[in-house]
Amino acid sequence: MSRRLEVIGIEGLPEIREGDDLVALFLDAVAEMGITIEDNDAIVITSKIISKSEGRVISLSDVHVSEEAAKIAADTGKDPRIVQLILEEARELVRVGKNLIIVETRHGFVCANAGIDESNVEAEKAVLLPEDPQASAVRLRRAIEERTGRSVAVLVSDTFGRAFRNGVTGICIGVSGIPALLDRRGEIDRFGKVARITMEAVADEVCAAANLVMGEFSEGIPVAIVRGTEVLKRCESDIRDVLFSREEDLFR
Amino acid sequence: MSRRLEVIGIEGLPEIREGDDLVALFLDAVAEMGITIEDNDAIVITSKIISKSEGRVISLSDVHVSEEAAKIAADTGKDPRIVQLILEEARELVRVGKNLIIVETRHGFVCANAGIDESNVEAEKAVLLPEDPQASAVRLRRAIEERTGRSVAVLVSDTFGRAFRNGVTGICIGVSGIPALLDRRGEIDRFGKVARITMEAVADEVCAAANLVMGEFSEGIPVAIVRGTEVLKRCESDIRDVLFSREEDLFR
Repeated sequence: MSRRLEVIGIEGLPEIREGDDLVALFLDAVAEMGITIEDNDAIVITSKIISKSEGRVISLSDVHVSEEAAKIAADTGKDPRIVQLILEEARELVRVGKNLIIVETRHGFVCANAGIDESNVEAEKAVLLPEDPQASAVRLRRAIEERTGRSVAVLVSDTFGRAFRNGVTGICIGVSGIPALLDRRGEIDRFGKVARITMEAVADEVCAAANLVMGEFSEGIPVAIVRGTEVLKRCESDIRDVLFSREEDLFR
Repeated sequence: MSRRLEVIGIEGLPEIREGDDLVALFLDAVAEMGITIEDNDAIVITSKIISKSEGRVISLSDVHVSEEAAKIAADTGKDPRIVQLILEEARELVRVGKNLIIVETRHGFVCANAGIDESNVEAEKAVLLPEDPQASAVRLRRAIEERTGRSVAVLVSDTFGRAFRNGVTGICIGVSGIPALLDRRGEIDRFGKVARITMEAVADEVCAAANLVMGEFSEGIPVAIVRGTEVLKRCESDIRDVLFSREEDLFR
């Protein structure tokens, strides 16, 4: 891999609304910072602004709360309308506890609250994950490549908690242009031994690196360029490569 | 946080042996590359070279295999001597399956094989995790600060698999100088809402970023400098801050 990596937070994007041309706004902000997009840049975009541009913002007053949602809200102490949205976005409830609902989303991601977030949006509104973040990554990559003439990767990032370790980290929920998993099986180590099982979740590592400049909450840095990923071979890729099948999953 | 981050892989360290002065070898390699250590550099060191310098390399021919280890080896298809070492390093078995043993280590980390690794070491040898990687981080940070006169952070990194997602990522098993968890509760978002629950596992994110230049297997880049973490306030810190108590842990 590359010996040097640079992570550049992109500032100055406006508040995103449904129908906004994200790519144009991103390229304007990049130009304003005096930066030029280069071949092999990996562009990490937080899911929240993609969701906003795709109209995935829900007014809580429009939510009809089912009986099941009301019951889980009472058990968990959560807003029943948020619980209703979580249930609509969920394929399976994984863990339910005090102020906590962990689900598998329709996309197959295991995360708290189905990725639904009330921060950095108006009061009484909530932002859902993009309908299909993998498709969003492909679409945004094509649009950036068309307008810049550069060959880039696009990663859609979010922040998820983890099992066994406290705290959230940046992770990838859609990737186009670099692999989700780097398969290093068969490589030879310095002592001539052959690697047997190592798959490196490079898309998640790129999003974790980006999250250090994007910050988790109020910074207003919704995009970062990760430069120096040349050795991650360009490829068609899919974030679903990191998802275990139900049979492989040891922790459910 | 910082708007720009740079990750610099440090090449040219020799193969590390017990008793080697890691800090001297690191500073030599840095000087050879024409780099100067700066205030606020976060220095990520892979656990393997710390283990080697601390003599945590075991000859498999010296391992006495217990009955329990022999049984688990038969069940999992693993080398009985490796299983014996795993049991000695484990506080608790978390999951046991075909070619798979996930444990909680003596330190409290949940990971495969108690972090024991046979790659990048001579045949018939295995490398254990450092005895106390948190203490190693503190010791190495002090030594680097004394010799350079700079105020730095040191992170001991490893690569662990995750629940729910395939592939390993760089994570932190010892940290001194930046927080393990960045507590962002109480911060105000762009719409005036107060953050409620967000703790960001910044030490793990720094190690994930470093892992992209270190690579997982044969690269021979055992150290990386992450530059641009100034806004992660200097502090005494402890990686045990990211570990859930047994009661908080939802997935065991």
